[in-house]
Amino acid sequence: MTKGRLEAFTDGVLAIVITIMVLELKVPHGGEFEDLKGLLPVFGSYVLSFIYLAIYWNNHHHMMQTVKHVTGKILWANMHLLFWLSLVPFVTGWMGENHFTTASVFLYGVVLLFAAIAYFILQSLIISSHGKEFLLAKALGKDLKGKISPVLYIIGIFGAFLNIWISGAMYILVAIMWLLPDTRIENALKNEHK
Amino acid sequence: MTKGRLEAFTDGVLAIVITIMVLELKVPHGGEFEDLKGLLPVFGSYVLSFIYLAIYWNNHHHMMQTVKHVTGKILWANMHLLFWLSLVPFVTGWMGENHFTTASVFLYGVVLLFAAIAYFILQSLIISSHGKEFLLAKALGKDLKGKISPVLYIIGIFGAFLNIWISGAMYILVAIMWLLPDTRIENALKNEHK
Amino acid sequence: MTKGRLEAFTDGVLAIVITIMVLELKVPHGGEFEDLKGLLPVFGSYVLSFIYLAIYWNNHHHMMQTVKHVTGKILWANMHLLFWLSLVPFVTGWMGENHFTTASVFLYGVVLLFAAIAYFILQSLIISSHGKEFLLAKALGKDLKGKISPVLYIIGIFGAFLNIWISGAMYILVAIMWLLPDTRIENALKNEHK
Amino acid sequence: MTKGRLEAFTDGVLAIVITIMVLELKVPHGGEFEDLKGLLPVFGSYVLSFIYLAIYWNNHHHMMQTVKHVTGKILWANMHLLFWLSLVPFVTGWMGENHFTTASVFLYGVVLLFAAIAYFILQSLIISSHGKEFLLAKALGKDLKGKISPVLYIIGIFGAFLNIWISGAMYILVAIMWLLPDTRIENALKNEHK
Repeated sequence: MTKGRLEAFTDGVLAIVITIMVLELKVPHGGEFEDLKGLLPVFGSYVLSFIYLAIYWNNHHHMMQTVKHVTGKILWANMHLLFWLSLVPFVTGWMGENHFTTASVFLYGVVLLFAAIAYFILQSLIISSHGKEFLLAKALGKDLKGKISPVLYIIGIFGAFLNIWISGAMYILVAIMWLLPDTRIENALKNEHK
Repeated sequence: MTKGRLEAFTDGVLAIVITIMVLELKVPHGGEFEDLKGLLPVFGSYVLSFIYLAIYWNNHHHMMQTVKHVTGKILWANMHLLFWLSLVPFVTGWMGENHFTTASVFLYGVVLLFAAIAYFILQSLIISSHGKEFLLAKALGKDLKGKISPVLYIIGIFGAFLNIWISGAMYILVAIMWLLPDTRIENALKNEHK
Repeated sequence: MTKGRLEAFTDGVLAIVITIMVLELKVPHGGEFEDLKGLLPVFGSYVLSFIYLAIYWNNHHHMMQTVKHVTGKILWANMHLLFWLSLVPFVTGWMGENHFTTASVFLYGVVLLFAAIAYFILQSLIISSHGKEFLLAKALGKDLKGKISPVLYIIGIFGAFLNIWISGAMYILVAIMWLLPDTRIENALKNEHK
Repeated sequence: MTKGRLEAFTDGVLAIVITIMVLELKVPHGGEFEDLKGLLPVFGSYVLSFIYLAIYWNNHHHMMQTVKHVTGKILWANMHLLFWLSLVPFVTGWMGENHFTTASVFLYGVVLLFAAIAYFILQSLIISSHGKEFLLAKALGKDLKGKISPVLYIIGIFGAFLNIWISGAMYILVAIMWLLPDTRIENALKNEHK
């Protein structure tokens, strides 16, 4: 099976998820600067979620570059990932509109955690279907980042009951960790073409 | 005619349909866990519909892999399928928000049934335009699953007037039936490449 | 310039336009069959608009199959077409929710007319940039359908002031005219490959 | 890395952004012509934003035609551009619904300015990653238009505090400037193929 349509469908869903989040930024009735104030928390959570979804798209893009073939299982693992990512606009809106209550910050982290698990499952299925000499497996190595992220999410999720700033710090930390240039796959691809 | 744009357009519509459903999960005003309770039925129907649309995308993807050429009739049969699938967010929202009333459960099944019929028409047109030795025809065989599904839908649709749990059971049963790994087309494709 | 992205962008916009129309079908508050009654006019106009957009996608798909290269002008003519088609969900919703008032039926026709003009401009630019032996020019011939449609739209638009049934008849007539199998381009493509 | 998915994702996001703007055109409750009057400012800002987004898509399309390879940095610069463009529907709606208050006209310009800066960063990264003989660098030359636009935006942004017509004039002027046929890249591509 070719991977073209898997990529196209994923691009479509991620493009829509990232864009409909902006619909949560509801146009305020007044037209003055102060009328925007109430939107600041929603805007803040929009920016964070935009970055998260961009990271997912980016990582997905890199991972798929190494894939040679897809199986039925991989298609479903991908759908499972898209399911959790499709919930991001909802939890983003809920967190922003309620000014970061404990419950909303908790739920935001839960959705991020399940998305990370779904990504891990997808990655594992891709690796196991490609044999030992597979580029992706070598490029990821011990996949430290992939293993630390869930731990940080869990700290963030349960930290919400103590202080939501713990959660905020964790969620932002994970994002920064993934934003830092990560050239494992790029380098591996380059080496292969040499 | 090439099949590329048919696939791209279908991917686009399905990606949007699967994603705008989440807009029915309206952000509640309160920020506590109990404020989410009212959303549970909507979330439940979201999950079911997500799985249905994922199944349709998956089956469509498999089927199109075998297609060599498309005709004007096939384009229209595909549009007809997309029409019924485009109604899924509406019936999902109606069913979820009204806590599974008889009428909403009935209508949900009707839309699923018409989508199944539209898929069957599309599949038949593709087979009839490709000749006897066509891979898809051989892979499907008697297409037992394709024939049982409408029967189960009909039981679910009219069962709604007795007890909506009959409908629920039928709709979930069909979903499970299609979720079970179905490697007819994958195997046929592999054999051909041997 | 390659035509790939022009097609992809057009597919994306049309897929979204055709799908967000369904958002105008607002989930009613009650869960009984009678609660759906008020939606019937909206549903009727949804079906008509779905068919119109499907026709546009179909014709666009056929036309682009013959195109060898695109110019900056063609890109803009295509954007112009997408602009008018992007207004279809608005006029569909307005017409449906207000139960086909004269003004809404008039405006619906105006948008259809401008979309038809935009399509005609796009088609003309494509033909004029491809030289005399161009397949599309030969396939269209006198393009009778393309010339009758605007006339019928105009009758429909101004007929709205007498009786909206005149408009309805015209709009449905144009749709049927384009739905009837039209194999001009398909045949021309086949002949060329012989 | 191939540029295919970068283009596909960008097409997806832009197609959605350009289309969901029309959701700000909320269907009025009355069905007469006068009920549309209140929508005129929203419609006017919709048209302007549609043209802006079409210009961005067009320029992006032209630029990507010259690109041979993409890097991780280019992916992120592209995401950054999409972020600012994703805010266009919000500022368009705010400006239109509040009949062009100073604050809303100011913010509209700010988003346009940041989008222009993001485009400039993307363009610079692409050029710097392709070496001296790169077609795009030669085609752009001194990139006069790219340098004048931010100046005009800034005049428009701060002009809003004096008179919003200054802003309006600037925003429309930039749009016209980019709408005028610009064949730098097209010509450069043609010359290369000779």
